[in-house]
Amino acid sequence: MSQKNSDNKHEVGINNKKMVGKQSIAFENPPYIIAAASIAGKKEGEGPLGNLFDQVVEDSMFGQDNWEAAESELMKMTAQRALMKAELKNTDIRYLVGGDLLGQLIATSFGIAELNIPLFGVYGACSTMGEAMSLGAILVDGAYAKKVIAITSSHFAGAEKQFRFPLDYGNQRPYSASWTVTGSGAVILSDQKSQKKKEGEPDIVITGVTTGKIVDYGIKDSMNMGAAMAPAAFETIKQNFEDFNIKPDYYDKIITGDLGYVGKDILIDLLNEKNYDISKRHMDCGIEIYDQETQDTHAGGSGCGCSAITFCSYVLKQLKEGIWKRVLFVPTGALLSQVSFNEGNTVPGIAHGVMVEAR
Amino acid sequence: MSQKNSDNKHEVGINNKKMVGKQSIAFENPPYIIAAASIAGKKEGEGPLGNLFDQVVEDSMFGQDNWEAAESELMKMTAQRALMKAELKNTDIRYLVGGDLLGQLIATSFGIAELNIPLFGVYGACSTMGEAMSLGAILVDGAYAKKVIAITSSHFAGAEKQFRFPLDYGNQRPYSASWTVTGSGAVILSDQKSQKKKEGEPDIVITGVTTGKIVDYGIKDSMNMGAAMAPAAFETIKQNFEDFNIKPDYYDKIITGDLGYVGKDILIDLLNEKNYDISKRHMDCGIEIYDQETQDTHAGGSGCGCSAITFCSYVLKQLKEGIWKRVLFVPTGALLSQVSFNEGNTVPGIAHGVMVEAR
Repeated sequence: MSQKNSDNKHEVGINNKKMVGKQSIAFENPPYIIAAASIAGKKEGEGPLGNLFDQVVEDSMFGQDNWEAAESELMKMTAQRALMKAELKNTDIRYLVGGDLLGQLIATSFGIAELNIPLFGVYGACSTMGEAMSLGAILVDGAYAKKVIAITSSHFAGAEKQFRFPLDYGNQRPYSASWTVTGSGAVILSDQKSQKKKEGEPDIVITGVTTGKIVDYGIKDSMNMGAAMAPAAFETIKQNFEDFNIKPDYYDKIITGDLGYVGKDILIDLLNEKNYDISKRHMDCGIEIYDQETQDTHAGGSGCGCSAITFCSYVLKQLKEGIWKRVLFVPTGALLSQVSFNEGNTVPGIAHGVMVEAR
Repeated sequence: MSQKNSDNKHEVGINNKKMVGKQSIAFENPPYIIAAASIAGKKEGEGPLGNLFDQVVEDSMFGQDNWEAAESELMKMTAQRALMKAELKNTDIRYLVGGDLLGQLIATSFGIAELNIPLFGVYGACSTMGEAMSLGAILVDGAYAKKVIAITSSHFAGAEKQFRFPLDYGNQRPYSASWTVTGSGAVILSDQKSQKKKEGEPDIVITGVTTGKIVDYGIKDSMNMGAAMAPAAFETIKQNFEDFNIKPDYYDKIITGDLGYVGKDILIDLLNEKNYDISKRHMDCGIEIYDQETQDTHAGGSGCGCSAITFCSYVLKQLKEGIWKRVLFVPTGALLSQVSFNEGNTVPGIAHGVMVEAR
């Protein structure tokens, strides 16, 4: 597949034109992903990607007194792990771009406070990793920073308490519901190549981004987030194809965040209607992260951490090993709060596309 | 004051070096603020700045059924007003960078959805306007966008319900408590000068930014946000002086977001200890926006909308009229949620500095 794609004429960023089409950027100086870290909870560790995470933590409290503090600790551990893997200190990082699902981003605020890095707090629900990587890449490409951390987290128990019901209520989960991933993923973006690559390992770069709009198809079910997010993924992926004048086969993989089984089918159908067949090269992080048969996770995984830890483990591994050459990473978010849901509002979606290449 | 400052040797951005000092950027192509809009609630309309807002809305529900929808409507009206003043359409805007105080940024998600503009959702509590303007300016300076909207909002009733007590509970407010502003402010940033300036009116540009870190002095009182935010404002302002090697008199005004009366004194004391005397040129949006004597607002105004509407009305007016030449605009945020507060956590602060100049 890589061989085939290398003949593709649409080399991104080749004409030094940053603004591409209606919603995209091609980077002139594509930022390097020089390190990444993924830390996950016990359930995620038991899933198909379990061996690929940097660390699996059995204690869902992460040694803390409450779920929110647990998630903060998880995010801090992940940022520190990424710094350690890159052999960098916190003072080497110009900006941290990060967010989480909790109201007022408290997992982030309390998690990264002691890192003492200038912060851009971002929120795009489960699309947040796409937003953080997009803004991080802009900061590095534009020479506003030499090194940036992009990071997100989510925690199953904190998210259930936040958005649905506290676990102690023992409520029933419909089959369309997704399971919020306990995990945090971080990438370090740099204007310089990694100095610690293995022999023959390619550079991993972010070549472009397509920034999403809010898309609202009127879904009102907070237990069916896949259906709410699929139209947003559709719009962003379609726009990416149009802006760069490319077809699905430009990419070896098109990786959505956490549509799950329900949302995946909707996405493929919506793109088919526009004559884009991504069925053979589509992958969804929410589907990959759990074994649906044995792990009772229903529609799949979700949460800011879902796409983040899948990208920082499995996706980067495939790119580093040359199995994939180009991917479009599209974390998807469902923009609801417990208040908006209880007031009967719809669940609008958003999806941010990040073009990642091994070269 | 302008005359004196024009002799100042520290012209920002003059050496085309984007990264300045530890935490700052000097823009090579300082983005123009070509339009701004401010829409406020009834109480803000009755305050000292009342005549300067584009619109004052008497109905605190903004024609909607609940407080959250009211705030969304307010933000939508404000974005549309800014577009109208700039004689632009939504399709002329490459990105909207915005946020609000509500959990999961629902005022923004539901407010700007129909504008159909690619969105970077941001959160920095009441510092959000500083973050939005910083990222918006980076996008324009770096040629990632020709035009960007930076926007924030807050609503008194929604914020009280979110962070403290629903209004119907009739709880008592201590004198250290601030009053969340009902208001939304938006600026349109552009790579080109405004075509609709009045004769003799200067261009207003963003020359640089200093991005804040999380600063936690251990304040635990959600009714005393000024004390929580003052240390963050102190760190950002001090860093701005150090990064650009300037003194307070570089600016005609140093404008904090919403420290209020309590936080203002703390800020001035903290800077005095470092031999920076800003007392003669400091202004706080939270103090300006209400008349403390007659409006019963205790420590002053707060909320994402406070600094946003003060900047978009009074501050820009002073710059356009040549009364001030250079200002440092430093919206300040208290990073708490109702959950973190109820769990006994501290209230960390953050402050983002934006350097604005009339030239």
